[in-house]
Amino acid sequence: MTNPSNRLVSLITGGAGFIGVNLIPQLRAEGRRVVVADNFSRGLQAYLAPYAADPDFQAVKADLSVRSDCERAFAMAAGLGQFDEVWHLAANSDIPAGVANPDIDLRDTFLTSFEVLRAMRIHGVARLQFASSSAIYGDLGDRELHEAIGPLLPISNYGAMKLASEAQISAAAESGRFTAHLFRFPNVVGVPATHGVILDFVRKLLATPGTLDVLGDGTQQKSYLHVSDLIAAMLHVRALKQGAGVAPINIGPVDEGVRVRWIAEEVAKRVCSGAQLRFGLGNKGWVGDVPRFRYSTAALQSLGWAPRLGSQAAVLRAIDEIASTHGV
Amino acid sequence: MTNPSNRLVSLITGGAGFIGVNLIPQLRAEGRRVVVADNFSRGLQAYLAPYAADPDFQAVKADLSVRSDCERAFAMAAGLGQFDEVWHLAANSDIPAGVANPDIDLRDTFLTSFEVLRAMRIHGVARLQFASSSAIYGDLGDRELHEAIGPLLPISNYGAMKLASEAQISAAAESGRFTAHLFRFPNVVGVPATHGVILDFVRKLLATPGTLDVLGDGTQQKSYLHVSDLIAAMLHVRALKQGAGVAPINIGPVDEGVRVRWIAEEVAKRVCSGAQLRFGLGNKGWVGDVPRFRYSTAALQSLGWAPRLGSQAAVLRAIDEIASTHGV
Repeated sequence: MTNPSNRLVSLITGGAGFIGVNLIPQLRAEGRRVVVADNFSRGLQAYLAPYAADPDFQAVKADLSVRSDCERAFAMAAGLGQFDEVWHLAANSDIPAGVANPDIDLRDTFLTSFEVLRAMRIHGVARLQFASSSAIYGDLGDRELHEAIGPLLPISNYGAMKLASEAQISAAAESGRFTAHLFRFPNVVGVPATHGVILDFVRKLLATPGTLDVLGDGTQQKSYLHVSDLIAAMLHVRALKQGAGVAPINIGPVDEGVRVRWIAEEVAKRVCSGAQLRFGLGNKGWVGDVPRFRYSTAALQSLGWAPRLGSQAAVLRAIDEIASTHGV
Repeated sequence: MTNPSNRLVSLITGGAGFIGVNLIPQLRAEGRRVVVADNFSRGLQAYLAPYAADPDFQAVKADLSVRSDCERAFAMAAGLGQFDEVWHLAANSDIPAGVANPDIDLRDTFLTSFEVLRAMRIHGVARLQFASSSAIYGDLGDRELHEAIGPLLPISNYGAMKLASEAQISAAAESGRFTAHLFRFPNVVGVPATHGVILDFVRKLLATPGTLDVLGDGTQQKSYLHVSDLIAAMLHVRALKQGAGVAPINIGPVDEGVRVRWIAEEVAKRVCSGAQLRFGLGNKGWVGDVPRFRYSTAALQSLGWAPRLGSQAAVLRAIDEIASTHGV
């Protein structure tokens, strides 16, 4: 084992979740030590099993909205070497749950950010990679959602607490002199899926194979990115080593997306051919759902990055991956 | 006394502060019952003395970031009649204090908003008038700050928590079916001043009459609105009875503002003629201070409102008012 002080260390909050689990191997491949802090509410210990014997990997159960838990996670990372980077992915990813009870988004999405920023300041961590969301844009109708658009009026507590976190990060970066990327995620698909439309459809079809009930009328159109492309995009932007400050950046595919009806049909084909699709009313799946948006990734493209998979290919691959993990 | 259920009731959070004290008589003149909830950290009981014998006015000491305190204030308002409106003005208004300790802005600016929204939902209050801030725009350089600009990257915790509150309000309005105005305040001057550059200068000159030390080099240029115009603008927009939803709106003068150096000179003239002005370095007074901005009030003007006083007249009137309350 080399001298700990020579090794770069990354802390991943929410690192046992969908995005984190896909990020870990990339950071390990860079030679970094990795610390995962997670409350294991949606993330699973099982996802971290591949690193059980890895001396350069540590996981800690922590509720990062609690100051002492957050401090414990940061102290662990600081003890492993040159702790220069936080990937802040921890958040409540269940949008309807946050609509029903705003306390959940307050605690898991906003207060985690607040405490992470406080700990970054204390430990002098230089870089923050933040998982923001296209949900910060709210419903701007047919306007193209680029990084310089406004007003920002999110329509879900999830989007609100992501925007609130962005705001905090921006102010903290100014006074704390660190740099931050605000990665505004699109709908991301792949495994290990913890939520989302594909997982819902697969589960429903396995529970009641003959029929598939779809929230809304199926005309909702959204763009989807495969998680492998999401990770690649973030690492690409991070490697550009831009100057100090805070940079918001949309991540997503270049296309206009696919409709929920098509996704339902493709899941049925893969999981339970011949199932009857039953649609609801209206083009919103739930309060806080944005029926359709035009999500601009021009800024990201101008930085020299393009996804390998478009929305259609990403969804098809994810359907196959999710179905496979469910044994079908 | 008429039947309480027939009377309209407004709750003003932070109602014992600078803005609230100027708002109370306007709402009373509409025939409304008024409840003020304040933690009296900057607001003063003395400011409410004119209403001591007013049967349609109530004040309650409350830390609105504490759920039980917030509920108590809402229950009081609900008990007085038809409680249909909240003016949410409560916030930490000391920007440098929030930079030094982010916990202050978290509690006094953000969590108060969170709890107010929760209580509004429970009590079914239909309308929210929110004191937001031009600080949500951060430092966008020479770009004109209109309501549709982005990205929103505040550089003070104060601005961050105001933007975070806007985000919450937006999401809550969607799920709670109430309407909200997000009034983005400029620098507001008048009495009873609790903070701000004019009050600082007056106090400094009274403490050390011969000299006046100015933070920064005095070239910071800002626009100022007199509090009487601010109140008038909000009441004007509120009376338009626009449809449901959330509307952000910049409030401010039409002019390009005045420089700190000019304000210092005018305060010296009024308070201590002949005082020597000493300037600091740089064009930022403190971390989080925005040296200069172009604040668009075109949207407000298009709604048929214009201020009676420009920046220069507003500052001169406020200097006179603040000096007078200090006995000079």
